[in-house]
Amino acid sequence: MKEIKSLNKLIDCFRLFPSVGEKSAERMAYALLDMSADKIDELETSIKDASTKIHQCPICGLLTEDKICGICSNPNRDHSICIVLAYPKDVLAFEKLENYHGVYHVLGGVISSLHGTGPENLKIDELRERINKEGIKEIIIATNPNMEGETTALYLTNELKDMDIKISRLAYGIPMGGQLDYIDELTMSKAIDGRQSLKK
Amino acid sequence: MKEIKSLNKLIDCFRLFPSVGEKSAERMAYALLDMSADKIDELETSIKDASTKIHQCPICGLLTEDKICGICSNPNRDHSICIVLAYPKDVLAFEKLENYHGVYHVLGGVISSLHGTGPENLKIDELRERINKEGIKEIIIATNPNMEGETTALYLTNELKDMDIKISRLAYGIPMGGQLDYIDELTMSKAIDGRQSLKK
Repeated sequence: MKEIKSLNKLIDCFRLFPSVGEKSAERMAYALLDMSADKIDELETSIKDASTKIHQCPICGLLTEDKICGICSNPNRDHSICIVLAYPKDVLAFEKLENYHGVYHVLGGVISSLHGTGPENLKIDELRERINKEGIKEIIIATNPNMEGETTALYLTNELKDMDIKISRLAYGIPMGGQLDYIDELTMSKAIDGRQSLKK
Repeated sequence: MKEIKSLNKLIDCFRLFPSVGEKSAERMAYALLDMSADKIDELETSIKDASTKIHQCPICGLLTEDKICGICSNPNRDHSICIVLAYPKDVLAFEKLENYHGVYHVLGGVISSLHGTGPENLKIDELRERINKEGIKEIIIATNPNMEGETTALYLTNELKDMDIKISRLAYGIPMGGQLDYIDELTMSKAIDGRQSLKK
């Protein structure tokens, strides 16, 4: 169906999204053509709204529609503990939990020679300033468990080592519900290194 | 991040697409917020264009931007052989092949008591008219290999049995590149029923 230009253009646009391959993009485009005019309007409006109303919180870097995000401006959150994230979207994994009530700080990336991101591109000075100003006592570094995330965590720990705060990293190990024979060697090795005592 | 209304709205909209679950919709929404204004404009325009310019071909029912689709209006296609499809999108699987040069006919669905679709909702009369008018000599029924697709194929065969045309159905069997120990019993049973002679 090479001749339907607007369909091909739409498929190309859908392919810009992560983990949307050719087949998925085609299915999405055909699904869109099956939608009612109302639903399509709604989609157009929501794209416009989201792309114009949402910006980063000037304090923590999370996304918000307000001047300051709902977490930074919430006095019921524990402002003495802070999870350090690479990207705003990483907050989703934590806000789905019931048991974290602290705040966040978005670095805006990780140290990566591949992408040309150095420490100077990350919001590390801003974090230091927040630690002093907001009285943060503990930070939990939650960069991804890969080389760039590790490098960033080590760099950050070193940068903040003179400050009187606890610094930790999310635990590595076998995922809950995982099957031991499917776990890769590196994860298993980390799970052994970080073994937790059941009996003193 | 319950408070970002426009983000949640966008995620809800993305979830309307097939095989887009909560996680994928979230990833897509965050990806959209990372796109340049140009890319977002392009996406908005392509949604608007596709949803306004594309309609079904009045002859075969495939999607097109033109008055009559590029396949029906192409004199180089073989108008004597016609693949019968349930939905316009099913054409993609055939147009990717190099070796089919015939035309198509879209029924607009399959007979389904679950969805309340009866034979009267399908473009069967239109197919009969095309067979007479366009001189179609052979139809290949390509509804999906499930109960509804089968019912529709049988019904259609019965409806057209008095016409002087060949009627066939796509072959069932083991998919190329498949592994025998992963093939389900029904497919295997069909593959045995439809076994092809290698030596007479």
